[in-house]
Amino acid sequence: MCLPACHLHLGRWTSRRHFLGGGLGIVAASAVGAAPPAAPLFSGPVHRIVDLTHTLDPDFPTFSGQPQITVRTLSSLGPDGWNVREWCVNEHTGTHLDAPLHRSAGPAVDALPAESLIGPLAVIDLRARAAGNPDTELTPDDLRAWEEQHGRLPAGGIVALCSGWGAHARTTRFRGADNRGTLHFPGFHEEAAAFLLESRSVKGIVVDTLSLDPGPSTSFPVHTRWLGAGRWGLECAANLEQLPASGATVVVGAPKVAGGTGGPSRVFAFV
Amino acid sequence: MCLPACHLHLGRWTSRRHFLGGGLGIVAASAVGAAPPAAPLFSGPVHRIVDLTHTLDPDFPTFSGQPQITVRTLSSLGPDGWNVREWCVNEHTGTHLDAPLHRSAGPAVDALPAESLIGPLAVIDLRARAAGNPDTELTPDDLRAWEEQHGRLPAGGIVALCSGWGAHARTTRFRGADNRGTLHFPGFHEEAAAFLLESRSVKGIVVDTLSLDPGPSTSFPVHTRWLGAGRWGLECAANLEQLPASGATVVVGAPKVAGGTGGPSRVFAFV
Repeated sequence: MCLPACHLHLGRWTSRRHFLGGGLGIVAASAVGAAPPAAPLFSGPVHRIVDLTHTLDPDFPTFSGQPQITVRTLSSLGPDGWNVREWCVNEHTGTHLDAPLHRSAGPAVDALPAESLIGPLAVIDLRARAAGNPDTELTPDDLRAWEEQHGRLPAGGIVALCSGWGAHARTTRFRGADNRGTLHFPGFHEEAAAFLLESRSVKGIVVDTLSLDPGPSTSFPVHTRWLGAGRWGLECAANLEQLPASGATVVVGAPKVAGGTGGPSRVFAFV
Repeated sequence: MCLPACHLHLGRWTSRRHFLGGGLGIVAASAVGAAPPAAPLFSGPVHRIVDLTHTLDPDFPTFSGQPQITVRTLSSLGPDGWNVREWCVNEHTGTHLDAPLHRSAGPAVDALPAESLIGPLAVIDLRARAAGNPDTELTPDDLRAWEEQHGRLPAGGIVALCSGWGAHARTTRFRGADNRGTLHFPGFHEEAAAFLLESRSVKGIVVDTLSLDPGPSTSFPVHTRWLGAGRWGLECAANLEQLPASGATVVVGAPKVAGGTGGPSRVFAFV
């Protein structure tokens, strides 16, 4: 069972085990500025980079259905001039991080150590099921099925739900609002979050939808449990379907705004 | 001579040469989603991660001297509640990218391919000179002196000026404004930008100060030439002094806001 204080350890990767089935073996870690450990954080080779970030503009869909970014031009290029703009943006817009503080008294986004934002990625592919049922949820059985094929989820790793929703980001299917306003898209089941917290050592979870919880949820138990345990979630990831089930390493370029509850992030996967 | 259209090639690393003197050999590249090339983009091992990002808050110094980010609370955590905030931020605030569009008709920040934001870093250490003369400039001779020690600047690489100014970010020395309002901090000399454009193949330049050009500049020739050639610059980097002169690989988590002239970025170095 992970106590609330476990977020204090987010910055240290504790596994001594190589990432099974992956080209990037994450075997140890250090705090920023600490002396190099005997074993590397990861070893290559890296053959390609996949951009897991959607382009953000005022039309990007949001959970509320209301635009969450506005852009204002401060300066337009003239002779010897400059182009400069200002954004006003809700911290939970576009491809973005939920820091523990979003749903708990846990760390703000700027308090997450660099090492906690980088790790080996397990991709759980639920596209076939989600195509038939947009409310489908990632369960402990899905995690066990992944492990049967690829080995135990790597300690210090990150788990992504690939629902296929990244391709719907510019259609009404992304929110999936019905006539009563209920949203419909896949998410993590509460028991999957509990399994990861209690039985595995995973630092972050990723969805290609608008919420860690499935669209119809009104109680948001995954947000409550996962963020409440000091872990982070990433929502609205792009291009997960371009990744292998195991072997990619994710780098989450979360904004470092003081006291932030999260924020639009630039996210890369090294494969 | 790099023609303006050279920015079209930013997404492809063309070197077949290993990064001399570094632990990460960048040897080839591909577009996002392309088939893996025969040689890896980079190979490890990576022993530590250095966060090159300053924490951003309304007190972070700016070129103009005026605050460039405001934060508004949209929701505060209550029972079953959420913490959510909104930022209004100038694109050129904190540790941030200057996209070519900032000073030219070149690409916006969201048009820079992922591969153009990652590369081997050469760190030019001018701390001793800058301590005695805050207006010092990085010249072609400084680049040649680095090459004498570490080999030719890697094709597809990134060049950073380490002036020591990262440590001044919370003091008046960071802007260095004198009684007449003239700023004083180190930057690149125009001839260094010309040398890199004409004689080397470098995708980005980095400073730990408020501007690619030195503080007293009023004509900003480095911005004009470098960004005008379709390249990017990163300003207000932190912790450059923690990096080796060669061997680090930088990952610039630039925001992917449509049409952006740049923006606050999360920047990591893998060492």
